[in-house]
Amino acid sequence: MSEATANLPDGFVEEVEARVGGRGFTTDPAEIEAHVTDFWRQIRGRSPLVLRPATTAEVAALMALCHRHRVPVVPQGGNTGLVGGGVPDESGRQVVLSLARLTRIRSVDREGETLTAEAGCVLADIQAAAREAGRYFPLSLGAEGSCRIGGNLATNAGGINVLRYGMARQLVLGLEVVLADGRVWDGLRALRKDNTGFDLKQLFIGSEGALGVITAAVLRLFPLPREIQTVWLAVPSPEAALALFARFRDALGELISSFELISGGGVAIALKNLEGVTAPLSGDHPWYVLAEVAWTFADGLEVLLEPVLEGAIEADLVLDGTLAQSEAQRQMLWAIRERQSEAMAPEGMVVRNDVSVPLDRIPLLLARAKELFERTIPGVRVLPFGHIGDGNLHYNLLQPPGMERAAFLAMKYGIQEGLCDIVAELGGSISAEHGIGRLKQGELARRKDPLELLLMREIKQALDPSGILNPGVIV
Amino acid sequence: MSEATANLPDGFVEEVEARVGGRGFTTDPAEIEAHVTDFWRQIRGRSPLVLRPATTAEVAALMALCHRHRVPVVPQGGNTGLVGGGVPDESGRQVVLSLARLTRIRSVDREGETLTAEAGCVLADIQAAAREAGRYFPLSLGAEGSCRIGGNLATNAGGINVLRYGMARQLVLGLEVVLADGRVWDGLRALRKDNTGFDLKQLFIGSEGALGVITAAVLRLFPLPREIQTVWLAVPSPEAALALFARFRDALGELISSFELISGGGVAIALKNLEGVTAPLSGDHPWYVLAEVAWTFADGLEVLLEPVLEGAIEADLVLDGTLAQSEAQRQMLWAIRERQSEAMAPEGMVVRNDVSVPLDRIPLLLARAKELFERTIPGVRVLPFGHIGDGNLHYNLLQPPGMERAAFLAMKYGIQEGLCDIVAELGGSISAEHGIGRLKQGELARRKDPLELLLMREIKQALDPSGILNPGVIV
Repeated sequence: MSEATANLPDGFVEEVEARVGGRGFTTDPAEIEAHVTDFWRQIRGRSPLVLRPATTAEVAALMALCHRHRVPVVPQGGNTGLVGGGVPDESGRQVVLSLARLTRIRSVDREGETLTAEAGCVLADIQAAAREAGRYFPLSLGAEGSCRIGGNLATNAGGINVLRYGMARQLVLGLEVVLADGRVWDGLRALRKDNTGFDLKQLFIGSEGALGVITAAVLRLFPLPREIQTVWLAVPSPEAALALFARFRDALGELISSFELISGGGVAIALKNLEGVTAPLSGDHPWYVLAEVAWTFADGLEVLLEPVLEGAIEADLVLDGTLAQSEAQRQMLWAIRERQSEAMAPEGMVVRNDVSVPLDRIPLLLARAKELFERTIPGVRVLPFGHIGDGNLHYNLLQPPGMERAAFLAMKYGIQEGLCDIVAELGGSISAEHGIGRLKQGELARRKDPLELLLMREIKQALDPSGILNPGVIV
Repeated sequence: MSEATANLPDGFVEEVEARVGGRGFTTDPAEIEAHVTDFWRQIRGRSPLVLRPATTAEVAALMALCHRHRVPVVPQGGNTGLVGGGVPDESGRQVVLSLARLTRIRSVDREGETLTAEAGCVLADIQAAAREAGRYFPLSLGAEGSCRIGGNLATNAGGINVLRYGMARQLVLGLEVVLADGRVWDGLRALRKDNTGFDLKQLFIGSEGALGVITAAVLRLFPLPREIQTVWLAVPSPEAALALFARFRDALGELISSFELISGGGVAIALKNLEGVTAPLSGDHPWYVLAEVAWTFADGLEVLLEPVLEGAIEADLVLDGTLAQSEAQRQMLWAIRERQSEAMAPEGMVVRNDVSVPLDRIPLLLARAKELFERTIPGVRVLPFGHIGDGNLHYNLLQPPGMERAAFLAMKYGIQEGLCDIVAELGGSISAEHGIGRLKQGELARRKDPLELLLMREIKQALDPSGILNPGVIV
């Protein structure tokens, strides 16, 4: 027995092996490493064991075992989460339950517009399977090439199409869930409407693995858009971006799929550090909007879009702009937005946050946060971007030149607290789409209505009475 | 003390009066009558007392009082439910908590596209308030002139726009809920994205008053459609209707708001019994489709719709059809569909049901149910209609000529059981949008996965440990 597995009950690893065989787990520290560190390598935990079941039945057998021995379990999908909800704590007692081997797309129903996928399916593979059937699965986010649908649902993922299609929650018709004690709830219904009692699946979606382990889901598909128009617009201010959004919404309604805001500084860094990216417009501008409209018809959308843009230019809401002329150009525009965090990496350490406020308070949030951080962290670059149409901003702060990495990283919780203070004043959310995880658990405990926290604990107690599912996350 | 109030604890009515005054309750049997009988007068309960609070604080005070004395409470909105979820049982011990005096629209935010309404607001009033602000609230159903939003949310109402905008659940951003013991949870957040812990509001939506009393909600609004095209089409069969739906979906995508199926027999009865309704088409046809497409532009939709209809006619999916040429004509087409139940009333007793199946199994459902009922109830008329685009049919059976009303009504549970058997075989739901209430509680207990029932009971136990909220409904 290695030093690490000393944290496990006697004979536990052997019992695991008896259930799932040698391929179904690892105790090798080199293999474990990737499962205990988050994507940006800012959160690091310890674990003696990574469980790797390949089927729902194996997940159930392992959960029953962990439950019997009271071994705490951290469910993990693609490990692309940004708040440490999928990595173990530093105790060395939590085992990781990777869903990465449950990768079967069980069925695709083109006419019924549903797709049934196992938790470990990579999001991009689900998008591709839908497209192959002539349908569209709209969940789309930066990590789609490696995040897994189980994690997307467990965290109620957002992304760039929320405006039109909703969060991950709204894309789910049914779930299969392994409970804390290993019982399997088969809620894999493919019905648009089903009012037969409390809607249990809603509890597991967005609960970050603290109430059950999602092993499969029935997802909603949509008609495939045939024409997509992507516009890149320079705007003078966040206020102008909001006024532009109001015009878009009024004129184009639900044809708008995305409406994103990017700071001028963030765009400059993307142009500097991302390969193959060239400036969409000449000159420097303070803010940019990236918007996308789409429909099922083959053409005609540009004609509907033009008067909206012309009106906005006349009203001084837009300084300059361009329409993507090819799929390659569209991909480049999206790269500037989607790869903001990646583009900043060569410039130094980045402290990230994810918040939302009611739409009309976005300018206040931007002004107050900029003032606070520039005053308290001299030389810091404040580079927010995000889904302004949802009131959701990702708040990246870039390490000041000359400051030590470790010193800046140590400010992480202070920065989070300052931003959360502002968001709370503005009636917003301290986590719009990334969740709570380990990173914001303290903020949640401090700021949430005590009655709401109590209700959450009661729900947790009802579904995971021995508290073995993702301890330290959310409650 | 009247005989009826003898079922209440000593001094209870006086304690009620001390909290809400004389207007805040009634023990008058004549006034109580309307609160203990359902809309179609098929379900009748008894109650000694109807509580009529006017504010959230009064609801809270009354729930605290009921909790202290363990008095069971039946929350009630507009009392338009179809499964008896809002009327008391026959014990005479349950008091009705009417939300009908909480009628304030607290705010409308045009830019943020939200509206905050109290539970007692009539749905049509909310639709009107949204429209006045240049926005659209899409929840729409036959009872919209008298149903109340609290009830709509407590039952996760569906209606005619689910295809495009989702069920009531998808239209809610935040809730205010009075818990079983009178504590008030203020979850009235107006955020599009908020991933801060378990999404508690999902528990209360669709729980039919068994987990808490919804007193107010933040609702989502949408851009106002400027052009609406309504088509009435005769189709040869349910299979043709489904093939037509697939073509609509493919060509027009999310511009489709409604896609309804009505039986030829149901249309004939509507033409016979509804005043001011004339035949949209000449001749009799076996089935009809009523579909609506809409968008934010002022015109141009007809041009996009035409090729879809022409193609469907060429493919023999459509026998004949007409486009509404005026709002009056549109209203008339909708009356034929929305007033199906009303039109059948003069013909005799109607036994209603509401079920859903995966889309492709609708023809099987129709065939099997028709065969079963025509075989077992000679002379019965089987007149289904509903939201075929959602896989949801309302299953009306009309009393055979010559059979006694009471004899037919007594068959209600047998009919329900037969239909539920077929639905279960086809992987469907025994309640698509009407809920469980008292009428389907037995079916739920018999048919639901025992694990799912157990989880529901555990949730109920966590939120309403003394079991005073709507006992006998769902769990």
